[in-house]
Formats: sequence, C-alpha cells, structure tokens
Amino acid sequence: MSDILRRGRLSSTPDEKIHKFTSSMIDDAWIFDADILVDMAHTIMLYEQEIIKKEDCVSILSSLLKIRDEGIEKLDWSYEDIHISLESRLIDMVGEDIGGRMHSGRSRNDEVATCIRLVLRNQLLDLMDEINTLRESLLITASENLKTIMPGYTHLQHAQPTTFAHHLLAHTGALKRDFGRVLDAFSRINMCPLGAAAFASTGFDIDRSRTRELLGFEGIVENSMDAVSTRDFLIEAAFVCTNIMLNLSKMAEEIILWSTSEFNFIELDDQYASTSSIMPQKKNPDTAELIRGKCGVATGSLMSLITISKSLPLSYNRDLQEATPNIWKCVETTTTSLLIMAGMISTMKINKEAMELQSVNGFTTATELADTLVRVSGIPFRTAHQIVGMIAKDGHVPTLEIIDDAAYSVMQKKMSDLGLTEDIVHEALDPHLNIDRRKAAGGPASNEVLRCIGSGKDDLVSDINTVNQIRDHTERSVKNLLDLVHEFIGNT
Amino acid sequence: MSDILRRGRLSSTPDEKIHKFTSSMIDDAWIFDADILVDMAHTIMLYEQEIIKKEDCVSILSSLLKIRDEGIEKLDWSYEDIHISLESRLIDMVGEDIGGRMHSGRSRNDEVATCIRLVLRNQLLDLMDEINTLRESLLITASENLKTIMPGYTHLQHAQPTTFAHHLLAHTGALKRDFGRVLDAFSRINMCPLGAAAFASTGFDIDRSRTRELLGFEGIVENSMDAVSTRDFLIEAAFVCTNIMLNLSKMAEEIILWSTSEFNFIELDDQYASTSSIMPQKKNPDTAELIRGKCGVATGSLMSLITISKSLPLSYNRDLQEATPNIWKCVETTTTSLLIMAGMISTMKINKEAMELQSVNGFTTATELADTLVRVSGIPFRTAHQIVGMIAKDGHVPTLEIIDDAAYSVMQKKMSDLGLTEDIVHEALDPHLNIDRRKAAGGPASNEVLRCIGSGKDDLVSDINTVNQIRDHTERSVKNLLDLVHEFIGNT
Amino acid sequence: MSDILRRGRLSSTPDEKIHKFTSSMIDDAWIFDADILVDMAHTIMLYEQEIIKKEDCVSILSSLLKIRDEGIEKLDWSYEDIHISLESRLIDMVGEDIGGRMHSGRSRNDEVATCIRLVLRNQLLDLMDEINTLRESLLITASENLKTIMPGYTHLQHAQPTTFAHHLLAHTGALKRDFGRVLDAFSRINMCPLGAAAFASTGFDIDRSRTRELLGFEGIVENSMDAVSTRDFLIEAAFVCTNIMLNLSKMAEEIILWSTSEFNFIELDDQYASTSSIMPQKKNPDTAELIRGKCGVATGSLMSLITISKSLPLSYNRDLQEATPNIWKCVETTTTSLLIMAGMISTMKINKEAMELQSVNGFTTATELADTLVRVSGIPFRTAHQIVGMIAKDGHVPTLEIIDDAAYSVMQKKMSDLGLTEDIVHEALDPHLNIDRRKAAGGPASNEVLRCIGSGKDDLVSDINTVNQIRDHTERSVKNLLDLVHEFIGNT
Amino acid sequence: MSDILRRGRLSSTPDEKIHKFTSSMIDDAWIFDADILVDMAHTIMLYEQEIIKKEDCVSILSSLLKIRDEGIEKLDWSYEDIHISLESRLIDMVGEDIGGRMHSGRSRNDEVATCIRLVLRNQLLDLMDEINTLRESLLITASENLKTIMPGYTHLQHAQPTTFAHHLLAHTGALKRDFGRVLDAFSRINMCPLGAAAFASTGFDIDRSRTRELLGFEGIVENSMDAVSTRDFLIEAAFVCTNIMLNLSKMAEEIILWSTSEFNFIELDDQYASTSSIMPQKKNPDTAELIRGKCGVATGSLMSLITISKSLPLSYNRDLQEATPNIWKCVETTTTSLLIMAGMISTMKINKEAMELQSVNGFTTATELADTLVRVSGIPFRTAHQIVGMIAKDGHVPTLEIIDDAAYSVMQKKMSDLGLTEDIVHEALDPHLNIDRRKAAGGPASNEVLRCIGSGKDDLVSDINTVNQIRDHTERSVKNLLDLVHEFIGNT
Repeated sequence: MSDILRRGRLSSTPDEKIHKFTSSMIDDAWIFDADILVDMAHTIMLYEQEIIKKEDCVSILSSLLKIRDEGIEKLDWSYEDIHISLESRLIDMVGEDIGGRMHSGRSRNDEVATCIRLVLRNQLLDLMDEINTLRESLLITASENLKTIMPGYTHLQHAQPTTFAHHLLAHTGALKRDFGRVLDAFSRINMCPLGAAAFASTGFDIDRSRTRELLGFEGIVENSMDAVSTRDFLIEAAFVCTNIMLNLSKMAEEIILWSTSEFNFIELDDQYASTSSIMPQKKNPDTAELIRGKCGVATGSLMSLITISKSLPLSYNRDLQEATPNIWKCVETTTTSLLIMAGMISTMKINKEAMELQSVNGFTTATELADTLVRVSGIPFRTAHQIVGMIAKDGHVPTLEIIDDAAYSVMQKKMSDLGLTEDIVHEALDPHLNIDRRKAAGGPASNEVLRCIGSGKDDLVSDINTVNQIRDHTERSVKNLLDLVHEFIGNT
Repeated sequence: MSDILRRGRLSSTPDEKIHKFTSSMIDDAWIFDADILVDMAHTIMLYEQEIIKKEDCVSILSSLLKIRDEGIEKLDWSYEDIHISLESRLIDMVGEDIGGRMHSGRSRNDEVATCIRLVLRNQLLDLMDEINTLRESLLITASENLKTIMPGYTHLQHAQPTTFAHHLLAHTGALKRDFGRVLDAFSRINMCPLGAAAFASTGFDIDRSRTRELLGFEGIVENSMDAVSTRDFLIEAAFVCTNIMLNLSKMAEEIILWSTSEFNFIELDDQYASTSSIMPQKKNPDTAELIRGKCGVATGSLMSLITISKSLPLSYNRDLQEATPNIWKCVETTTTSLLIMAGMISTMKINKEAMELQSVNGFTTATELADTLVRVSGIPFRTAHQIVGMIAKDGHVPTLEIIDDAAYSVMQKKMSDLGLTEDIVHEALDPHLNIDRRKAAGGPASNEVLRCIGSGKDDLVSDINTVNQIRDHTERSVKNLLDLVHEFIGNT
Repeated sequence: MSDILRRGRLSSTPDEKIHKFTSSMIDDAWIFDADILVDMAHTIMLYEQEIIKKEDCVSILSSLLKIRDEGIEKLDWSYEDIHISLESRLIDMVGEDIGGRMHSGRSRNDEVATCIRLVLRNQLLDLMDEINTLRESLLITASENLKTIMPGYTHLQHAQPTTFAHHLLAHTGALKRDFGRVLDAFSRINMCPLGAAAFASTGFDIDRSRTRELLGFEGIVENSMDAVSTRDFLIEAAFVCTNIMLNLSKMAEEIILWSTSEFNFIELDDQYASTSSIMPQKKNPDTAELIRGKCGVATGSLMSLITISKSLPLSYNRDLQEATPNIWKCVETTTTSLLIMAGMISTMKINKEAMELQSVNGFTTATELADTLVRVSGIPFRTAHQIVGMIAKDGHVPTLEIIDDAAYSVMQKKMSDLGLTEDIVHEALDPHLNIDRRKAAGGPASNEVLRCIGSGKDDLVSDINTVNQIRDHTERSVKNLLDLVHEFIGNT
Repeated sequence: MSDILRRGRLSSTPDEKIHKFTSSMIDDAWIFDADILVDMAHTIMLYEQEIIKKEDCVSILSSLLKIRDEGIEKLDWSYEDIHISLESRLIDMVGEDIGGRMHSGRSRNDEVATCIRLVLRNQLLDLMDEINTLRESLLITASENLKTIMPGYTHLQHAQPTTFAHHLLAHTGALKRDFGRVLDAFSRINMCPLGAAAFASTGFDIDRSRTRELLGFEGIVENSMDAVSTRDFLIEAAFVCTNIMLNLSKMAEEIILWSTSEFNFIELDDQYASTSSIMPQKKNPDTAELIRGKCGVATGSLMSLITISKSLPLSYNRDLQEATPNIWKCVETTTTSLLIMAGMISTMKINKEAMELQSVNGFTTATELADTLVRVSGIPFRTAHQIVGMIAKDGHVPTLEIIDDAAYSVMQKKMSDLGLTEDIVHEALDPHLNIDRRKAAGGPASNEVLRCIGSGKDDLVSDINTVNQIRDHTERSVKNLLDLVHEFIGNT
C-alpha cells in the first residue's frame, strides 16, 4: 500500500534507522483510545455542519468502532505516527472515497494536541485521587497519634518536643497546596485545540464549540496558532508532579531516618521493605528510597520539556514529538508514588516509647523554660535565652538552683527572687505540659491539632467531591459521544 | 559587643572565611524593609496580647522607624543574618531590657519566611503588571496589522498565509495563561507563616490572625512546621517565571529570524539593537538575543531550588538560606524581560511588503486549493491532498490545466469536469481571499481576529483590575500598619 | 517456589502494585548478558581461589551458558531484579547445594555496578564511533565546498563572507573535543567494582585483580564503599551526551534555517524530510527538528541523575536503581542522533548560488573595507570603523566617491588623497578576494581550510584507531572469558 | 563623548532600562585584569607583525598599565561592556589616532572568549588546590582512625561493621576522580581563541601562535568560528563543579546525620556550628547544611548554561553574555565549599565509643556469620544466608544453640555437627576480628586501609605537583608578558 501522506510530495522512503528515529508509534499507544474519540467527535461535527454526508459519517464511525476493538496492534506500524496509521486503516476498510473525508478541516497538529489533553486530563484526575488518598492516610494516622510525643527537629537537631500528629499535619498542609496546583493546571489543560487545523484554521465551515462539547472540554484554546503549538500545559503538569515528588522525597527521607536503628521511631510493614542478598539481618526501607529516587523522574521530565520548548518559533515543530512521552511516565510515577506512600504510612508500626524517650533528649524544653522565665519574672526574652543557653552549654539538668546560678551570673539576680519555683521549673520541663501550652493556630497542643485534623478532613471531603464532579462530567461526555456513535450506526 | 545569639551556647567564633560562607547579609538587603514591617506587626500584636508593656512597645516601634531611616548600611554586618543584626541594633538603642522582648513568641524561622513572602508578593504584582504591558503591546500591534499578510510557518517552512495580527494573538493567548499561573501562585504565596516560631508554635498567647491582618495577607500557613519549612512557593514562582521566559524565548527567536536579511520582516528600533566592534555595517537584535539567553536565568533558578529542596526532612534546615537568593534575580529578570519585549514590539518597523511577498512563496495556498477541490467536486480530502501534493512536487504554478492533468493521473478524471473553473482556482490562490475564508473561532479571517482582539482587550482590562485591587489591598495594609505605628509613637 | 532472598527475614509478600513499583526487571534487560559474564568471571575466580570446588564451578558455568541461550524471557519475572532471578534460575537447574555457592564473596551491590559499567563501556565505544562518522561526513562535505561562498553570521545577521567549508569545520572542532570528553569519561568507567561485596569487602579470600582481568577492565575501583555506591560515571556519561546533543542542536538549528525558503541554502534528501497531513506542498526538515528536540532527552537524563545523587549518604541506597535506566536511553539517543546527522549532511543538496548571492548581501565586506582603509592609509582602525559605519547606515554601495565623502565628514580628509583607488575598493568588496586574504590559522582562506581539513583527517584517523584498539581489547577479554568457560565445561 | 561603537551605525541611544538590561559591565569586573593582559599581548603582536608602529605600541602599553592601576571603577560605566569601555578610556588617554589602532585584527568576540578562559584557568587551579586540601584532610583523619570501628550502612541500615578510616577513604576515591575531571576540563579550557576576530579571522597578518605564547596557553582553538562561539568549556566546568558539589552534599548529609543526638558520632567544632535565636540549647551543623544547599548553585549554573546553549546557530550570539556570569559563582562556591569541608573534617571531634557501640547493633555481623558457616561446614552461601536470616528475624543473639536450631529447621542438620563451635561463633561476632578478615583490595582490614592511605598520599603528592607545575607555567607567562611590557616602555 502506498503511503497516503508521502505519495504526493516525496520520492524516496526513509530507511529502517531513520524510520525508527522519526516514528512516534510506540509512544502513541498512550493516545490510541483518545485518537478514536477525537476522530468520532470530528466526524460527527463534519456531518452536522454538512461537510460530509450522513452515510459517509456512519461508515466512518462504524469502522472507527471496529478499529478500536481490534486495538493498536492491528495498525500498520510502518507509519510515522498513529494518526496517519489509523486513517490509513480506515481507508483500507471503507475506501478512500469515504475514509479520505475524515481529515477534512483538521490536521494532525490539532488532532495530536487534543489527544494529549484528553489523556492527560484523565491522568491528572487519577493524580488528584491519589493525593487525596495520601492526605487521608496522614489524617487518620495523625488522629491516632494526638498524644504521641516526639522530638521536633530543626537542622536535624532536637529542638522542641512536639507530637507525631503535629508533624504529619505539616505534610497534609503541603499536599493540600499540591492538590490546588494540580487543579489549577487541570483548568488550563481541559481546553480543546481541535479545529485549529495545521495552525491557520480552515476554510471548511467547522464548529469548534461542538467538538469541544462532544469531548467534554471546558472551553477551546482560541487562537489557532497557539492551539497547535503550545505545550505549556505539559510543562506545568511536569512541574506540579515535580513539586509533589519533592514533597514525597522529604517524607521518604524522614521514613528512612526513622527506620534506622539510631532513630528507631517506626518499622515499615514487611511488604514495603526488602532484605539483602548478602546481609540476612537487614530490613531495608526500599520503597521509601525508591520514592526518593523517583523524584529524579519528575525533575528529568520537567527539564527535558523546558529544554525542548526553549526558542521554538511558531507554530508546530516536530521537536514537540519529543515532549509528549516525558509527561506520561512523569505523571504515572507520581501517582503511584503517592499510592505507595499512603500504604507505607497506613501500615507502619510506630514506636511511641522510643519517640517519647528522645523527645526530651537534648534539652528540647529549653525554649519553653526560657519563655517561662520571661512570663514568670518579666525579664526580656533575649536575657532568658542567654541564661538558658548557659545552662545548655554546661550540660546540666536545669534545677532551680542551677537556674539561679546562671541568672545571677548574667544579671546579678536570682530567678527564685523573681518568682520562679521548683514546681514551675518542673512544669516547663515536662514535654506533655510543654506541648499543650503551645496552642496558637497550627501549634502542637492536642486540642489545636484535633481542630486542624477536623478542618483538614473537611477540606479533603470537599476536594474529593471536586474531583468526582469533574470526573463525572468528563466520563459522561465520553459516554454520550459513544452513545451518539451507536445511535448513528443503529439508525442506518 | 558580644554576639546576642552565640554568647550563651558556643565558645569559639568563626573565622572570616567561615563567616563569609555562612552569612546571608548581602542577600538580606532584599528583605530589610519587609523585616522591619514584620517586627512592627509582631510588636504591636505582643502589646495587644499583653505580652509586652505599652511603653516597651512604643520604644521598640520608634527605634524600628529609626533603623528603617538609617538603612541597612548602618547595621552591624558581622552578624550572620539581618534578623539578628537588626535585633542587635535595636538592643543597642533601647537596651536589652526592652529590645530583648521583641523576639518573644517567634523565631527567625517564621520571621524570614514571612519576609520572603512579603517581598515576593510585591515582585509578583510587578510581574503581573509587565505581563499585561506586553499583552497590551501585542494587542495594539495586532490591531494595526489586521490585514498584514505573512506566511504562517510549521517546521519553519511556509505553510499557509496568515496575518501578522493572527500570529501575534498566539502570544497573547500564551501570556494570558501565564497571567493565570502567576495569579494562582500568588494566592499560595500571600499566606502568613508568622507565629509558627521555630516550627513548634509558642507558649506565649500570640494571635496569628492579627499579625496576618496587619501585614495584609489573605490567610495563614496553618501548621507551624509546614509554615517555617516549606519553600514550595519559591519553586512555583520560579516555575511560572521559567514558563514566561520560555514564551519570551520563542518571541525573541522569531524577532531574531524576522530581523535577518533573509526574512527581512521587521526592523528593530535602534535603541534595541547594537552594532559590532569590528563590522560597522551590522545592526544586531541584541535585546532579543539577551531575552532568549536570560531564559537560562529562570531555568537555572528553578533547577537550583529543586535541587536544594530534594530530600530535606522537616523542619527548618539551613539549606533553605541558599534557596531565597535564586528567586529575586529570577523574578526581576523575568519582569524586565517582559518590559523590554513590550518596548521592542511597540517600536519595531514592520516590513509589510516583504511579508506579503513571502506569504505565497512556497505554494502556501496548497491547503486551500485542496480544500477547494473537495468543496467544488466532492472528492475526498485525502485524494485532493494527493493531487495538490503532486503539483507541489513538480514546482508548477497551479493552473486549471495542470490541476486537470494531476487529477487525471490520480483518479482518471479532470477537475474541470467536476466543476472547477479558472476563477475558482484564482480565488483559492489569492492569499487575502484565502485567509478570509478561515473564519472559524480563533482563525485568521480579519473579522474573527478583530473579535479576538476585542475579547483579548476585555480580558486584559479585567486582569489589570485584578492586579490593581490586590495591590491596593496590600499597599493599604502596609500604610495602615505604619499609621498605627505612628499613632503609638504620637500617643506617648 | 519460595523467594530465596526474602524467605529468611521477611514474612509478608508485596502485593502486585508494590512489586511493580520496586522491580527493576524491565530495565534489567539491558544488563542480562553482562550479568552472566560477571557471574562467569566471579565463579571462575572463586574456583581459582579454592572457595568453590571444580565440579561446582563447572556446573554453574554450564548452567549460565544455558540461561544465556534461553534468554531473559525465561527468567522468573516475579523477582525484584535480574540478579536474584538469575541466581534463582541457576538454583532451579543445579540445586541450592551448588547454585547457592555462586554468590559467595559478593553482593548484588558490586554485581550491578559491574554490569552497568560493562554495558556502558560498549555503549560509549559505539558513541565514539558515531562521533567519528559525523566528523568524517563534515570533513568530506567541507572538502567539496572549499570555494562555496556563504555569508558568515553573528547575531544571525550577515557579518562577513566565509565559505561553507570553513563553517562546517567549526563543528568538527567541537566534535573533536566531544570525542576527547567521551574518551576521558570512558577511562573512569572502565574500572571494576567487583569484589567490593555489599560495600565492606568480604572475608572470603577473593582476588579482585583476577575478575578485573577476566572482564577486561583497566583497573579496579579500589575502596569497596566507593565501588558500590558511586554513580558519578553515569552523571559524567550523561553530561558528555548532553554536550554532544547541544552541539547537534546547533547544527540542527542551522539545517532548519538553511532549509527555509527565506534562506534556501540547502535541500534535505527526501528520506530525512516529511510532508504534511494537510499541506501537500510542504517538505519539512523533521529529522533535524527531532535531533534538536532529542537534546531534551539527554538534558532530562542528566538532571534526573543529579537529583537522584544529591545528598545520598554512603553506601548503597535503593535510589540508585532509578539512576541506571536514564543512561541507556540517553547514550542510545545521542549515538543515533549522530548517525542521522551524518546522513543528513552527506546527502543534502547545497544551493551554492543562493549562498554566494547572500554572501555579500548586507554589506558583509564592510570589515574588510575598513581594514583596507587602515592598511592603505594608516588611519586607526577605530576611525575606519566609523567611516564605514556611516556608509552602512546610509545604505549606499560604497564607491570611492562615497568613501571620500564619509571620510571627509569624519576627519576632514579624503581617502583618495591617502592612496585609496577604485581598484582597491573593488578588491575589498569582492568576497572571493576578501576571504582569501583571511589566512591566519583557522581562517577561511581556502589554503588554510585545506590545511585544517588535512589535520582534521589526521586527528580523525588517530581517534578511530584509539577506539578500535580499545574495542579490540574489550572484545578479546570477553572472548577469552567465554573460551575459558568452554574449556572448563569441555574438560569435565 | 560620543560612543565609539554606535556613532557610525545607530542613531538613537538606549534609555536607562535598556542599557541596564544589555550592559555586562557589572559582571565584567571578573575579567578586567584579564582583558588588559589580552590587550597587551595583542598590541605587542601587532607591533611585531608590523601592523602598528613601535611608538604607538609603546603608548598603548603604557596607557594600559595606567588603566590597570586606576582600576575598573575609573572606566566609563555607560558603555555596554568592558572591552569597549577600556578601549574608549585608552583613546581618551592617547587619542584615537593611536588608541584606535589597538583593535586592529581582532573583535570583542575573540577578546571576551580569551578573557573568560584566562580567568577560568586560574579559578580551576584554585579549585584543584582545594580538592587536594580536602583529600589531605580526609587522609589524615583516616590515618588517625584506622581502628575506629563504626557501623557500615546500606539503605541507612546497619549492614556490617567497618572502620571510620575505611569510610573516609570512599570519599577520597571520589575526589581523586573529580580531580581528574577538572584536569581534563582544564586541558580543553587552556586554549587560545585570540585572533579569530569576529569569527572569520582577519585580513591583517596576525600571528595567533605568538599571542597564545604570550598569554601562556597550551594551544589555540583553531577554527575561527568555533573559537568565538563555543562555550562548551563553561558547561564542562559547571558539570565538574556540580559533580564535586554532589559529592560534598553526600559528605555533608553524613556529617548532619552523625551530628544528631540519635547517631552522636561526631561533634563539629563550634566555629562550624550555630545556635538558635529561640532554642538556646541547639548546636546546629549549619556549615554542612549550607554546603548541601550550595549544591543547588552548581546545578542551577549547569542548567542555565545548557538552556542558553541549546539551538544557538553559529557564530557569536549575544545570548552568550548570559552564560559567563554563571560560571564565576559556580566555581567560587565549589572551591570555598571544599575548603570549608576540609576544615570541618579536620576539626570535628569523633565519638569513638558511640561508633563502636553502634557497630554491632542490628546484628551487623550476620554476613560474616553466614560466611563463617559456609567456610566451616561447606554449606552453600544461599543456605547459610537463610539460616542467619531466620535468626535475625527472631531478634535473637546468635548462640551456637540458636544457630543449631535454625540450621535444623532449614536443612535438618545442626551446624555443631558440621564443625561449628562456640569459639568460632564468638570470633565471627567480634567486630574487630570480623573486619580484619576483610582484607581484599579496598577492604576495611587495617593493613589494607593503611596501604590505601599510603597510595592515596602518593597520588595526592603527584596531583599537587601537577597543579603546581601548571600554575608555575601560567604565572610565569603572565610575568614574562608584563616584563616585556615594561621593557617596551623602558626603551622609549
């Protein structure tokens, strides 16, 4: 069979190496289903606009259904891409006189852009689902650990005691923003470029709003040059994934630290761990390490897309073919990493005793002690900081006497003369009392954490609903389109 | 003077090299003004919450005003950062017994995060302004070139004729999305972390919503660990800048191409060009080249921020000090590049004759001719594509006779027998008629372009209003805060 | 069959999703052959060191040959990686009492590092070959275009006339350095980590220099922790590929520019071009665009590897599993891109007339004219630059009279009074004479270019010999190893 | 004063914003000294080639010396770059009739490329020095810790006992390769582009080998288009820095981990630590965190340079102005980070007791126990692995009895029946004996480590000599050039 594209203009045929270099067939597997939907919507619109006849429309639609059932494997893989291979298969089935009409008023440029957006739309919905799965895991684990005391860290040094619940909520905060970013990106992706043709629109009397509606997009990418050539939505999707993976890399790092025998805060469930081929005693947090490593997948994709996009003049350039494969793996990896992280969090054993033991190691209550000195005696914070710093340096357990000595050397006054008692000192050094005093918004006091978990759950429910509504709408659109196709075929 | 931070805990002092390595003083110049505002808001809140006394509050506020007037140069640069240097200057002025109270209930960790957000907030407002400046430039130039015919390109090959207005609108489409991204990023930046203290909140009875209000933020970053340790907002800001710079790099590439003697479509105004130190006849599009090159600034910053963030456990780590300087140059460069691009577009001379001449070079009307064959005769598009491709390959000017010959060899029929006339052929080959037929949404037909310019202007006005409202709000907040400070001082 | 690794230490088995997330089996296809070579070398060494008995050695070697013949498909893909799957298959064949001995004195950590280096070694040899193929293409094309005059560009503006040969030699210069970089990287890759075991060496009396020799490495990676955990060689390989792809992206950009109807300097052979699905007249330089786009593959891989490596403590971490797949595609893409570029260069048609016509367009001879004024009259270069700049601005063809006028207005002297004649002016403006005057080292004068082509060919021959010698050595090592294996089996 | 460049060709002058956008004056401070050397070498060569007269040569040289003494501040900063500003200052001093001759036969394009290489050459020598400083620190600390036992890690889990010396040597191995990379990069940087002029060489009879010699370069960048347009050497320098910073980020990560109260392996010297503004007991490893964060500087620079270079056609484009500033900060940061790391390593306190205590925690001797079972009894390694894995899972201290039980359940035999004794078990579990058994090349046995330290020191001495020789040569060249300048001036 002669090549329906090249037969007119070009004489020689690329050899095998060149063909392999230029063909996108392998990666196009991702968009096979989407391409058929696009073909269907376009064909129906062509009929409705009286650009093709009803019987041709019916023939095309019915063959598209068959091609869909046969699957991508049945296509001729010697073509340079799926669009032309699919059209060629159609022409094989119904003849050029009918099949040759489907491509009226469009080009592969707007076609492929539409396919990518259709597939990415679904991928982002899955991504949002798994962000929410992880948020839920974290919220549940937090609610089970309201009173699980642990050392809070800055510079990976013990800083002040906090609770495990409080720590986990930091991650839900980050994930909530990530959800927002995906949703924002989604709103820019869910726009239809179909009808832009090669870049310059078409002289056929097409109806872009109709294909948009049939494919369930929110709107159209208006300017036809912009519609076919922009891939900013891929870069944005890669960025949101990169940021999610960075957040996961932080959680993974913590899980790896906590799993060390030095920290010994948690034990991963066996299914998320591996052992060694040579060291039989090992239990390695491999899944967490892999998530940390897979951060590189997203970053690499992002940088790849940026490099490809730089300096490309309008409108379509073949460089863009290299852009697309980056995004599929990037979003898929991110989605799975979220799911795996949620499983790890849900199933890990928490060693509450070890955490609490460490929580006061390293004089973590020093800040509260300094604050107490301020509140009791009215001395300035900076002076209290100096007194407590002096005690910390000497490594003493701070008793009233020791505090008095330090205070005296700093300001020639004893704290006990300013109202400090043994009881008050003891209270400041007790991590539980210490934490519950820190009840400002977003603080670790258990009541405040409980409140935050509550509002975190409310946010989550609302975000889950948002995803469900969008998904309902897009799935209904696809279903309606297929129903319409069947109606056409049934009517003949 | 002894170091108010280190004097308690650490004995030896870093040598000069280490100090230079660790100090952030130089980069902190960016946040000097913001830091004083944060100090003021925090101090007022401390008084209102009865944590410090009114006279101390007044002393601190009045000294802060003085420090602000003196400027950053008067600070002691031997400190490791501006926060501690500023506090130390305050203590010099009012004594530790008063100045030492300002830092109660907070830490440098929440302080610096708040400062960065305050400065970045203003930077993004400027950035949005300049996006809008460029949109306006493009819309105005487009409206002056509704009928300026040029070749549209795919693969940098002449593809179909279009208009310069249509081409420019592709860029306004991209910039409108960029505006949306900055606005989305802004909504996540404009949140207040103050009151999170070191990461674990504080036992002082602070009021986070009050400092948020005084500083004009939309909300608070709730969880206190998240508040001090996340820098996702910097990464997002770097990403939106990178995407803008990528879009500018494309426009710059086009300007460079159009300025070649081969294209000769435009001539830049002299102030945007340079000459050579050795080749006196040259007029180089340097400003466009620099914009293209400055794309690297944004990309580098983004990658820098990503690398820094990867795998950092909670909460604050000193690595974050390296993050901040990246963003200032990134946003500033992007903002200026937008401004320069707007100036280039507004002042360039457009060589309409050269554009129109080229617009039909390379048989750019082939698609319309093929479409015409379809519409006139009802043959399938794919067949028409083959007939016209054959003519293109032979390099002939397509007359009715030549078309007939080609059609005959493809399908043993002449197009003239199917209704094609010389007049119809001529019409298809005329770029003006050709373009005006392409009037689908977003197409190049002048009426449609006019409509798009209109709606583009409406969008622009609305976006300008959005920025102005936000700016009014943030500026009013700062003004109110300063008024309050003066009221306090005046009242004593 | 129970999992030979996990059966001891871990109780639950990962579910399907986790398995898919953690398994490296798909990517391990790249190292299947290498792994068997490593197993063979290690087994022979174990025997030679009397750690295993001869009959066990023979059994293992003979089974390894069988597994090699069966291919990777026959392995049990439910294992987490190829090493353990391969060992498990071996145990299935010869029983644990024999097969269970192969892994003595090593670990998967040193095993996989050795496999990666073996495969990458071959990949880099292919890469060097294709760099040389492209150098040859360029040198041949250059030698055919010694007198093909073209405009030389700075800022994409016509600057001075040069020859196509001179232009092409700029790229051979860059590729020669790229060759050097690959060779330097190769010397750091071709080192053997085997025998480092998990990271801490082994108590078995192994002989690392023997396995090194059997596998044809230049030396060993000495420290055992370094040996298993460094992936710096992957980053270096990705960097050299990135730099090659950047150089190819520049050549691709030029090919795309030269193929425009505006430049019209070259026409690609049809097999390197494509046409449009909608615009039948198009001939697009797709292969060049794809090479330019594939620059993103290398950059993405490099950034991926950098992100993965950042902050990993010693020694082996599972993150490294994510590192490896990046490199295969990166080197392969680069190698193929070089090959395709060489084909494009060799087959393209060069439009010498168009090049020569443009070579003087834009007053490209201005520099030579200014230089001539200096040489003839002894005025300073800066003054000559000003005189010629003035003529350029007015757009005049520079006759003696016009030059006199300009000179007079600048320095109140006429050039004709200082020795300038019409003949001398004419000579300066003739591009051929103009070029042949620029005969300093590396300049465009045809004799100098001829000399450079000659020395370029000498360098190339020498570099080809270098690659061949290395390849001979490594192939001979592998052959010797397999011979030894057959000898063992034959001797039983 | 009129602009000596623009006065001829361009009419309008850029406004302030455009000037700031295009000027490179601030960054050019880095190359001021180098530029004067280049001017001197070029001027002397012009005289020697009889292109300028001796008296003009002397005037120019003498003024260049004065400009050098005045410093960059005295230049006119309204120029777009230092080259033209410097030439303009020269003309102010000696008049255009003399000063206007200096630029004969060259262009800013070859001039700036030469300056960058001169400065980077020195920067890389400093970089190599500091790599060697750190190697020395590590070797010394290693030699003091031959018997300091610590847990070796894989997956950050205790794996097998090793020594601190062995661990540190892993880093010297990596740094030795980094040294090699810098040296390789240096050889490609130390080449002279001067004389390439704008890109097309010059009609003046210049002598490129003479300026090369005067400036102390190893050779010339031959092809004149390549010479002015390649910046591959910047990308390579950024890459080698990035790899060094990645290695430092790993060391920094370890230092941060070891400084935690959980690990408690080391205590940094106070000068490398900081405390908290709110938590007075803290001692934070800030310097290590900053090094880890500064990894982002190098990565960002690398990505910036890659983005800038992509798709640039030959020859010089103004984009390259954006490339250069990236490299200065990148190399400087890397150099300082190496120095700081060396200081940290040299001064840290090592907590040998804590390390040894942890070294057997987590059954790190399991591998040696399994190996012992193999050696004593002849069972296959895989079976021994399973037996020991079973013991590890149950968390028992492995006594002969427990081993017997486990062995029996696996293979229905007791190890004591196969020759295992309590003494042998005890020996396998003793970390000291355990380590000294691992004496293969690069293993942790103290004799082997001692040998490796010795050869590491030999390598270091040799590399230090290499740097010193190169530095002597380049410094001597500069000195000779200045001597020659003084000779010229003295002779008048």
